Amino acid sequence: MSVIGKSVARPDALDKVTGGKAYPVNFQLPGMLHGKLLRSPYPHAKILSIDTSAAEQLPGVKAVLTHHDVPQRKFTSVYFVPTDTKSLPQDLLIMSDHVRFAGQPVAAVAATSAEIAEQALELIEVDYEDLPAVFDPEEAMQAGAPQLHDGAENNIAVAPVMEFGDIEAGFAGADHIFEGTYTTQRAHTCYLEPRVCVAEYNGNDGYTINSSMQHLFGLREKLAFALEIPESNVRVIKPPYIGGGFGGKLDMSYIEPVAALLSRKSGRPVRMEHTRYEDFITTTRNPIKVYLKTGVKKDGTFTARYASSILDAGAHATHGAEVINVHGFAWLSSYHCENMKWEGKSVYTNNMIGGGYRGYGAPQACFAFESQNDEICETLGLDPIEFRKKNARQLGSAHPLVPGLTIDSYAMEEVLDRGAEAIGLAQRHPPGANGDGTTKRGIGMALFPFWVSGCVGFPDIYEHSGAIVKLNVDGTADVATASVDIGSGQITTLLQIAAEELGLPMAAMRMVDTSDTTTVPFDAPTHASRITYGSGLAIKAAAGEAKKRLLDVAGTMLEASPEDLEVVDGIVRVKGSPDTALTVADVASRAESPFIQFTDQGPAPTTLAEKGTIIGLSSMAPPSNPSPIAAGFVEVEVDTETGEVKVDRVVYSHDLGRVINPKGAEGQVEGGFQQGIGYALMEEIQFDPDSGTCLTGCFLDYKIPTAVEMPTQIESIFVESNEPTGPFGAKSMSEACVVVPAPAIANAIYNATGARLKDLPITPERVLAALGEL
Amino acid sequence: MSVIGKSVARPDALDKVTGGKAYPVNFQLPGMLHGKLLRSPYPHAKILSIDTSAAEQLPGVKAVLTHHDVPQRKFTSVYFVPTDTKSLPQDLLIMSDHVRFAGQPVAAVAATSAEIAEQALELIEVDYEDLPAVFDPEEAMQAGAPQLHDGAENNIAVAPVMEFGDIEAGFAGADHIFEGTYTTQRAHTCYLEPRVCVAEYNGNDGYTINSSMQHLFGLREKLAFALEIPESNVRVIKPPYIGGGFGGKLDMSYIEPVAALLSRKSGRPVRMEHTRYEDFITTTRNPIKVYLKTGVKKDGTFTARYASSILDAGAHATHGAEVINVHGFAWLSSYHCENMKWEGKSVYTNNMIGGGYRGYGAPQACFAFESQNDEICETLGLDPIEFRKKNARQLGSAHPLVPGLTIDSYAMEEVLDRGAEAIGLAQRHPPGANGDGTTKRGIGMALFPFWVSGCVGFPDIYEHSGAIVKLNVDGTADVATASVDIGSGQITTLLQIAAEELGLPMAAMRMVDTSDTTTVPFDAPTHASRITYGSGLAIKAAAGEAKKRLLDVAGTMLEASPEDLEVVDGIVRVKGSPDTALTVADVASRAESPFIQFTDQGPAPTTLAEKGTIIGLSSMAPPSNPSPIAAGFVEVEVDTETGEVKVDRVVYSHDLGRVINPKGAEGQVEGGFQQGIGYALMEEIQFDPDSGTCLTGCFLDYKIPTAVEMPTQIESIFVESNEPTGPFGAKSMSEACVVVPAPAIANAIYNATGARLKDLPITPERVLAALGEL
Repeated sequence: MSVIGKSVARPDALDKVTGGKAYPVNFQLPGMLHGKLLRSPYPHAKILSIDTSAAEQLPGVKAVLTHHDVPQRKFTSVYFVPTDTKSLPQDLLIMSDHVRFAGQPVAAVAATSAEIAEQALELIEVDYEDLPAVFDPEEAMQAGAPQLHDGAENNIAVAPVMEFGDIEAGFAGADHIFEGTYTTQRAHTCYLEPRVCVAEYNGNDGYTINSSMQHLFGLREKLAFALEIPESNVRVIKPPYIGGGFGGKLDMSYIEPVAALLSRKSGRPVRMEHTRYEDFITTTRNPIKVYLKTGVKKDGTFTARYASSILDAGAHATHGAEVINVHGFAWLSSYHCENMKWEGKSVYTNNMIGGGYRGYGAPQACFAFESQNDEICETLGLDPIEFRKKNARQLGSAHPLVPGLTIDSYAMEEVLDRGAEAIGLAQRHPPGANGDGTTKRGIGMALFPFWVSGCVGFPDIYEHSGAIVKLNVDGTADVATASVDIGSGQITTLLQIAAEELGLPMAAMRMVDTSDTTTVPFDAPTHASRITYGSGLAIKAAAGEAKKRLLDVAGTMLEASPEDLEVVDGIVRVKGSPDTALTVADVASRAESPFIQFTDQGPAPTTLAEKGTIIGLSSMAPPSNPSPIAAGFVEVEVDTETGEVKVDRVVYSHDLGRVINPKGAEGQVEGGFQQGIGYALMEEIQFDPDSGTCLTGCFLDYKIPTAVEMPTQIESIFVESNEPTGPFGAKSMSEACVVVPAPAIANAIYNATGARLKDLPITPERVLAALGEL
Repeated sequence: MSVIGKSVARPDALDKVTGGKAYPVNFQLPGMLHGKLLRSPYPHAKILSIDTSAAEQLPGVKAVLTHHDVPQRKFTSVYFVPTDTKSLPQDLLIMSDHVRFAGQPVAAVAATSAEIAEQALELIEVDYEDLPAVFDPEEAMQAGAPQLHDGAENNIAVAPVMEFGDIEAGFAGADHIFEGTYTTQRAHTCYLEPRVCVAEYNGNDGYTINSSMQHLFGLREKLAFALEIPESNVRVIKPPYIGGGFGGKLDMSYIEPVAALLSRKSGRPVRMEHTRYEDFITTTRNPIKVYLKTGVKKDGTFTARYASSILDAGAHATHGAEVINVHGFAWLSSYHCENMKWEGKSVYTNNMIGGGYRGYGAPQACFAFESQNDEICETLGLDPIEFRKKNARQLGSAHPLVPGLTIDSYAMEEVLDRGAEAIGLAQRHPPGANGDGTTKRGIGMALFPFWVSGCVGFPDIYEHSGAIVKLNVDGTADVATASVDIGSGQITTLLQIAAEELGLPMAAMRMVDTSDTTTVPFDAPTHASRITYGSGLAIKAAAGEAKKRLLDVAGTMLEASPEDLEVVDGIVRVKGSPDTALTVADVASRAESPFIQFTDQGPAPTTLAEKGTIIGLSSMAPPSNPSPIAAGFVEVEVDTETGEVKVDRVVYSHDLGRVINPKGAEGQVEGGFQQGIGYALMEEIQFDPDSGTCLTGCFLDYKIPTAVEMPTQIESIFVESNEPTGPFGAKSMSEACVVVPAPAIANAIYNATGARLKDLPITPERVLAALGEL
């Protein structure tokens, strides 16, 4: 390998530091208007009337919309719910006369400046009928609770159930039964760049749109559906990169269809940008309450596993209808057990709508099951590593949910052993036995034993990818894909894959930064840890096609068979005869130039077949569902007087098949732990129950770990199991490091103090309360 | 055929009529500056000094450039001269201290408005040393003439010679020898939209550029070369269409590199747009003086053909170095003769630079040889149709210049017979015998017996093309190509080809309107009548790839072998079983959707291989050099008192293999004759010999035929010979109808008056002079 496995510099590094104009927030069009949304102050209300006449007359206002002006076709904003499905709710409207959460848009204005648009909002008079609201999903399921959506009885959006084996017999055969309830909170991904879009109406029912969304083709699909136009009428321009997403920009928000309709009405491009407050009330990780009941033999072998999960979907299902499934999947597929049953419920409330967030239901699941597993080990005196090795899935196992698929790489034992060794797990003290006075220290761990690259693990989804790889006559290569870099460094990783396949140096590689849905093949979203594996395979395939053509032309030029050639660092050469060589630029020029080349012996031999751009195309589904596996180990210090918890040391061990870019992978882990520690200890979106106002709508009120709260040391261990179906052996990376911190920290707090914390975030108040209960 | 051969409406019709914003002249970027050029009033001068300090201090001025600030690497602006050639001159500089024509740019300003930039130009002080100038190419070749370029002895840029057989023996064996000298003038293509560009410097030596040029990849190549940067540092955005080109926008002009450098210096995008005056002094058909000497047997068979052509290249060779070759080629390949010799000279003068113009050297050649052929027939009493049939090339003949190629379709006899029949050639009167008083009527004709689609006819050029054809989930198709529509209707034609290949209706087809050099494969320029044949073949191939995938997926869905399927009007069906069918949208959705589809029997069978976008790619050289053949027939009325000539009736007969879009083809003919009649009778760019000022720098002074001057009737006869290598049998169309009008009109004037006019344009003054000589 000449490029894979190297910590190459990110091509977008400078722009990332300077906030360069490539970011969607800096995108402008001449004559562009600025749109703003008027949002309901009521969490549940009926709009009796809206008067926009004063707003329309404000100089500079070019278009005003209310629910009267927008299509009333119900949709779901999330891409990976098929628009034609009957089983998952289509319950959103661009604007509606029925308000279901505080902050729901009820009118929109486009004006020549954002300030004028804001002023105009104040001139709109809305007459609301305040309706009774419900904020707790368990209350929402009770008889007599306010009903949010027709057809969703007891406010249940979806209620999936999965069962394997005989759960009753499993519990009957158990030596011990453990029960526990675990709750998780509403958390925001805290991307740096706000959600933003610029939409332009082109006539003939057609729109062009730039957006900070994480998925080009998802936006095309959803926007077309909501606007009731054919998909090809929507052209989505890919931004070079977006300023963070983490799943929070997976779905179409209100701004995209509203900007499109404002553009249509005004005849000018319309830009809409969220304030930070709007971002906070737009997307969050869904809170889930998990009840676990687990039967085990004396030796720790599982005999029965039961889980019941209640998800607060908020006012509309969107991701809440899918997060619940992935959450169940994460629990079901984590550890092997013959007898398993899971019951999930996604419940409507008058809270804000949920969204995607790195891990997508898995953090909530893993917090529950790894907390309980720790309790099982502690109670039964089992070694936590051996307990997990015994119950986890094994290399070669059949996939738990997808018939016919097997686990082809799975270095679970090495992941556990190397991580435990590095943190010193074997040497840790018994609970409460380390430290003195008010300072207690503890070590905890959590395994995230199974995940998938993309949604390939789901039996009804094959998330596919495509790419175009084109060689330029100067020996460089342009790589085009619909895959959006959300800050995860995928531009670098994908270019490394293409470079390795082509035999080019990284300096010769360039990602095409503004392709669009008309030219590049479909790519699934940047989500679900899928890019390196899924998009990587597609880019490798396209690069392989281009290389094939490169070798064909070079073969003619070198009078050699293409099979006898290799490409190394931009040089095409005959294997074993390195002086018989040409640069890739020579070959690409010869192919693309319309001119026959002349040599001292006259015109060089040329065939028609070798003329043309050296270019490769792919569009393909990934063949498998490789299983990364990861374990987190933390050492914490608990101040028993203040309840404060400080994570001092992190060891993270992850089987990712093959490391493409070590520095990039470390960055993923560090960012993941930053989000994971925040989720574990401090982050929570909160609303004033009376006014519906978000109390944590800015970074002064919504606390995330800063450098002060972060551990001084994060050690990443990358285990390379070489996934046979992956690009150069790689499988997925991004999410597991966000999933393991919370249970590892909770388990470390138990080890430090003997107190078992089952509710996130583990605030000082909760620690003190738990310690008081001892 | 369901789409080919139909007069479908142009998708760009509305924009064409309204001058929609898709045209480059309407392209804007936020923060864009406006650039202007200061041009030399001297035709030949040395710049002693330039003082730009006052201009730089004018408020609003953001950048000023002189020859001190630009790379001094010599280049040629024309794409189809390889940048590494030794044999063709690289003699241009972006700016130089040596002025060689009046109007040469000597400084440039970018300012916040075009008005400020103009003002700033007036503040620049240039100290010139006036040098002696030469304007006549024959004088320029004399000893003692001012020398324009180092290394071009006697101002000869290139002097190609080609010889076949034994020219002396051929003349010795002739019964008659005919000699004549024919001159042609400087003519402008008169595109409607001025040359315009917007360049943006992106840092890292990289530029993005929108331009009205006719060739994306040519601009990339030339700009990179002139700026001394790698080609991949230049990203050229394709405009949806440009407002006319006709060859006049084939080459990079000064504005593209100047705008790029002004953007680099100012840090802002820079727009530059030509005034109409600037357009007139930027591009012209090169004047050529042709001496012909032809030996014939009594029966009209050629025994020897000799030609000598002197081309006025102007101050820089650019197209002048290639037009001379194509001109020679047009003469050499027109009629068969065992003994031929041609000597060409392209000569530097202090005139404006030449450019491409529909026909590219052929109008000058055809005017000469078809005038002389008419004289031969008239002198020897030969039938003009039989004379041409005897001497023209034949179906199956070897290509005259390209070894190994044969003429596969060539309906020369039908073209001649049907045209002659329609105009009534056999019934025409003897010279001077039709009409009375001062009104004389005459009929004339000219054959353009050989041409090529693109430059494939040249042994050292294979002009290749590529395309991407992508099916959308709504059953529509996006076609992407680097080929620029210059107003010729190629969007329509190419979409028809793709539609026919895919089995889709035209309404489902869309041309991607702003692709760019990073994503789409190379395509040769929109020139040389090559688009329908060359780009058409590539688009057909890409559509064929997409269709293959479409049928594969449909085969799975319909449980049929792909070979048993056909696609008709958007429906995929089993041949002979039309009820076993799916829409293309069904199949494309199934392939692109990540979701398995469910039927009443459970999940529909799916394989990984069928998942992905249905998309096809091509990049290929055309396999042959098909020979369109065309004849023009005109009837004129000559006023012998005023010398005015009116073309009353036109019959145009053309073997184009297969008509793709009859209305579009007729439009080509009508536009071609408009340009051809103007060339024959009135158009000429003229300069004041003292000041160098262009005297015809606007449409008040440069006369082109209006509705009043155009004939009331233009009859197009399209002969369909079915070119076996062409897309659905098609070959080329655009240029022949510009080539034949001048000789046909001159020959008709002879038939009307007995006067032989050998100098273009045939103005009333020249007619009167010729009549006075009788």
